[in-house]
Amino acid sequence: MSLLIEPSFWEIAKNYRVIMFDAFGVLKNSHGIIEGVPDTVARFREAGIASYVLTNDASRSPQEMEKTYTHARHGALIPATHIVSSGMLASEFLALKVRSGPVGYIGKEASAHYVRVAGLEPIPVDRVTDPDSLRAFCLLDDEGFDWFLDINRAVNLLRRVNIPIVVANTDIAYPIDADDVAVAVGSLANMMEGIVRKTFIRFGKPDTQIFSFAYARVREAIPDIKKNEVLMVGDTLTTDIIGANKFGIDSALVLSGNTQRSRADVMIQASGIIPTFVFDSVRT
Amino acid sequence: MSLLIEPSFWEIAKNYRVIMFDAFGVLKNSHGIIEGVPDTVARFREAGIASYVLTNDASRSPQEMEKTYTHARHGALIPATHIVSSGMLASEFLALKVRSGPVGYIGKEASAHYVRVAGLEPIPVDRVTDPDSLRAFCLLDDEGFDWFLDINRAVNLLRRVNIPIVVANTDIAYPIDADDVAVAVGSLANMMEGIVRKTFIRFGKPDTQIFSFAYARVREAIPDIKKNEVLMVGDTLTTDIIGANKFGIDSALVLSGNTQRSRADVMIQASGIIPTFVFDSVRT
Amino acid sequence: MSLLIEPSFWEIAKNYRVIMFDAFGVLKNSHGIIEGVPDTVARFREAGIASYVLTNDASRSPQEMEKTYTHARHGALIPATHIVSSGMLASEFLALKVRSGPVGYIGKEASAHYVRVAGLEPIPVDRVTDPDSLRAFCLLDDEGFDWFLDINRAVNLLRRVNIPIVVANTDIAYPIDADDVAVAVGSLANMMEGIVRKTFIRFGKPDTQIFSFAYARVREAIPDIKKNEVLMVGDTLTTDIIGANKFGIDSALVLSGNTQRSRADVMIQASGIIPTFVFDSVRT
Amino acid sequence: MSLLIEPSFWEIAKNYRVIMFDAFGVLKNSHGIIEGVPDTVARFREAGIASYVLTNDASRSPQEMEKTYTHARHGALIPATHIVSSGMLASEFLALKVRSGPVGYIGKEASAHYVRVAGLEPIPVDRVTDPDSLRAFCLLDDEGFDWFLDINRAVNLLRRVNIPIVVANTDIAYPIDADDVAVAVGSLANMMEGIVRKTFIRFGKPDTQIFSFAYARVREAIPDIKKNEVLMVGDTLTTDIIGANKFGIDSALVLSGNTQRSRADVMIQASGIIPTFVFDSVRT
Repeated sequence: MSLLIEPSFWEIAKNYRVIMFDAFGVLKNSHGIIEGVPDTVARFREAGIASYVLTNDASRSPQEMEKTYTHARHGALIPATHIVSSGMLASEFLALKVRSGPVGYIGKEASAHYVRVAGLEPIPVDRVTDPDSLRAFCLLDDEGFDWFLDINRAVNLLRRVNIPIVVANTDIAYPIDADDVAVAVGSLANMMEGIVRKTFIRFGKPDTQIFSFAYARVREAIPDIKKNEVLMVGDTLTTDIIGANKFGIDSALVLSGNTQRSRADVMIQASGIIPTFVFDSVRT
Repeated sequence: MSLLIEPSFWEIAKNYRVIMFDAFGVLKNSHGIIEGVPDTVARFREAGIASYVLTNDASRSPQEMEKTYTHARHGALIPATHIVSSGMLASEFLALKVRSGPVGYIGKEASAHYVRVAGLEPIPVDRVTDPDSLRAFCLLDDEGFDWFLDINRAVNLLRRVNIPIVVANTDIAYPIDADDVAVAVGSLANMMEGIVRKTFIRFGKPDTQIFSFAYARVREAIPDIKKNEVLMVGDTLTTDIIGANKFGIDSALVLSGNTQRSRADVMIQASGIIPTFVFDSVRT
Repeated sequence: MSLLIEPSFWEIAKNYRVIMFDAFGVLKNSHGIIEGVPDTVARFREAGIASYVLTNDASRSPQEMEKTYTHARHGALIPATHIVSSGMLASEFLALKVRSGPVGYIGKEASAHYVRVAGLEPIPVDRVTDPDSLRAFCLLDDEGFDWFLDINRAVNLLRRVNIPIVVANTDIAYPIDADDVAVAVGSLANMMEGIVRKTFIRFGKPDTQIFSFAYARVREAIPDIKKNEVLMVGDTLTTDIIGANKFGIDSALVLSGNTQRSRADVMIQASGIIPTFVFDSVRT
Repeated sequence: MSLLIEPSFWEIAKNYRVIMFDAFGVLKNSHGIIEGVPDTVARFREAGIASYVLTNDASRSPQEMEKTYTHARHGALIPATHIVSSGMLASEFLALKVRSGPVGYIGKEASAHYVRVAGLEPIPVDRVTDPDSLRAFCLLDDEGFDWFLDINRAVNLLRRVNIPIVVANTDIAYPIDADDVAVAVGSLANMMEGIVRKTFIRFGKPDTQIFSFAYARVREAIPDIKKNEVLMVGDTLTTDIIGANKFGIDSALVLSGNTQRSRADVMIQASGIIPTFVFDSVRT
């Protein structure tokens, strides 16, 4: 069996009412939005097809993310209200289950947005003076702290106190250019959980919760939407595609990010994770 | 810190509009419904509080399960429409993503309900004559087949064909009486996945998908329901309680099943999974 | 980089003083010894090169295994004293650490040899009447018992008593012909350990213990042997090759079993497990 | 069942010919050698009982470690030749299987001893200029490098080149005082392996290889030694005790390190790892 790569993303995607895009490797890379993508998204907008972003990313707010998709000519292609990040699920959890009080975290200052917007008080782990006062602890992002000092600090703090431990991004790595990856906070979380031996609460693809969250948003805008009218587009079989499959919507693998064209067929067969469609990129 | 066991389930539960119950270890055991449970559920019904069942069980249809909760005096305490099983999620997946054709399975004949209701044709693994014709494969239940012959059959079949592999119950074991457990189909799935080396698609708690599914049902009946008006009651920290926490609803651990009273405090601290309340049973 | 397959096994192997062979996929398959293998082994014997077998197999005694390698013309090609099985390590553990008393087991009657030879009394799990009298429990082989009844029996027995639990073969599957595999007792062990939640004690490749055991045997016969005079020949990267590498002896991957010629290069690169040599088979 | 803590370490240990001690939590802590330990070891020496150290530690050479055990009055209690570290196994692997050339590493400068002594040239990861020239890569220690920069560097380097990757200490954490632990290089290795997706080669307890290595040393000094004349003393069930059990020697758990007195009974029962004896410390 040889892999069928559909010649045109547009010809197939235009039959859906909603397109959910993964961000990294699909719409953008470490240099910003991928050339040609603004035209693609603008074309959907003109055709009355709604574009959403579903991203395992808690490094900054949807408002900040919106700027990435704002184009000189086309304007705000994907508004903040159409961007669903794993950080927002973590935030909802904090608002519903923790409610108030100080919350320790590791991550960039900008990632603390997700604690603050839940009505809680974010404290970077190196400034926690009273561990017993913390109501929760969040692993938000892989940057903005001293790995050696703060991971060791966090491990010892979490061994001692019995509070919910939230991981706002389940990814183990993310691509930073064609060749290189960066260790993501999901990997740090796995390592710390192995030492702390408590159950961390994780948010993000492939878990279907982020799809449910986004779909509820879609339903507010398009009350008569049906699952077979939504297409998820992603570059990663183990997060985007299996999550979409499990949620019951169609899935499109694009070969512009984590999954290389030369290895796509083998990876699909080896994993048993089968996308509905495969495209070279969203620009075809 | 010592564990606070609330003296009365009723006094706290009566403040919610919806109670979601786990089945095994909460409402029933291997001998059937636990004595006193019908009175508890009837009392909620009289108070206008809706009872739902959320169960990792694909051994038979909700209609069959309803009979368990039908009482000589009180009648059908929990109607089939209020019973959400992991089998129903598997069924929805099959209907949305596979749609038609033959589907191999292991499990009891009654568990094939979840394939049939999706409009597909269930074939027990020992009667599969043309593996290439299968559109999916389901692991439904731990009974109804010859473990040695059929697990080996299924493993070799799944190595060969590239189709979605569905696990309709993620539990690794289930209690059959005060002392003993039985190996659940989730354990067989983990073992088979290790050999087949493809990604199986799993349905059931602690994944929040079953909570989303049940909550959508609730919302149809009670459109203005809010998450803080729903209480999940379960006997297992690693499925019922963490799932409810992650979904953002309150959780009650009962000590009438998987979690023994003498070990509850240690297990909560060791796991870091913190229920909103702890009760001896739903009959208090 | 493309894989270098050496044209002649003999030309390279003849430079060693000892060859350690894996059994399945190298010397034999489910039909018995592979055609041409007796001539290969006989040639080593004539050249004064010693052949040993290192096998993850506790299904029968080395004396029984010797018969497989006895040839009409060449006689006993590999005597029982040159056959080292994972069962022998389990047996040594029982003799040194358990010493006497009844030992429960799952496996064929012939596999109970490894309990008996340690001076203990093997009892199949379905005949255990007094679990508290058991001094240890062994998982020996995947055949000879009723999987459904006896795995459930063993799980409940092992949850109750606190005794050493021995796994005499770590393999998760073994090839039975060119296309099919069988679930091995190592897979059953992994599944049971996940439910019982105690630490099973495992014996077999890739752990270096079986190499140490065999090397000690070799040293008795050839006191001045050095590690760089020994070649391990196997068909599986994750057991034979990584174990030999870690033990510090040279390793040869043959493509006559678990590792297909078309996938060998990818598997070596993907796993990072690098054999010293690659051959099509030991007959080249 | 309640745990039997033997009143006197000396009374039982004096019946053995060789005592193998774990280092951290048994003989020393982060402040140096534990008070009273020199007298204990000196007493064994006077009685003609040999003391060895078996330690998962590749942070410095045995010669450096010897200094820890050198006492003002008693002199060198445990000479370098009686100290066996996981670093020495890594070193042996490098000498036998890699032989020569540059080897990248993360760890302290002192830990590079184990590369150098194997006849290879250690290069810290931040000074690797030609990844393709490397013959192996070693994870030696958790200190001496910038975690953020160098772990990301190492991950990308190891994704690219296909060389043996050696982990010289399998521990996931180590105690630094009564309350706190530090993340060990074994945890970093697990995290990196999850991203790199190649098989790292690990050295250290609980693998029996370090016991074999030490036992071979003992046999050189005491040719007629038998396994039942050796006692392994450790503070950790999952490394010291299970390793000793599997190697076939007696094991003593001491409650002066990783395993707290109040939790020892529960941990033994929960893990199923059963020491031959339990003592409060080696000073009793």
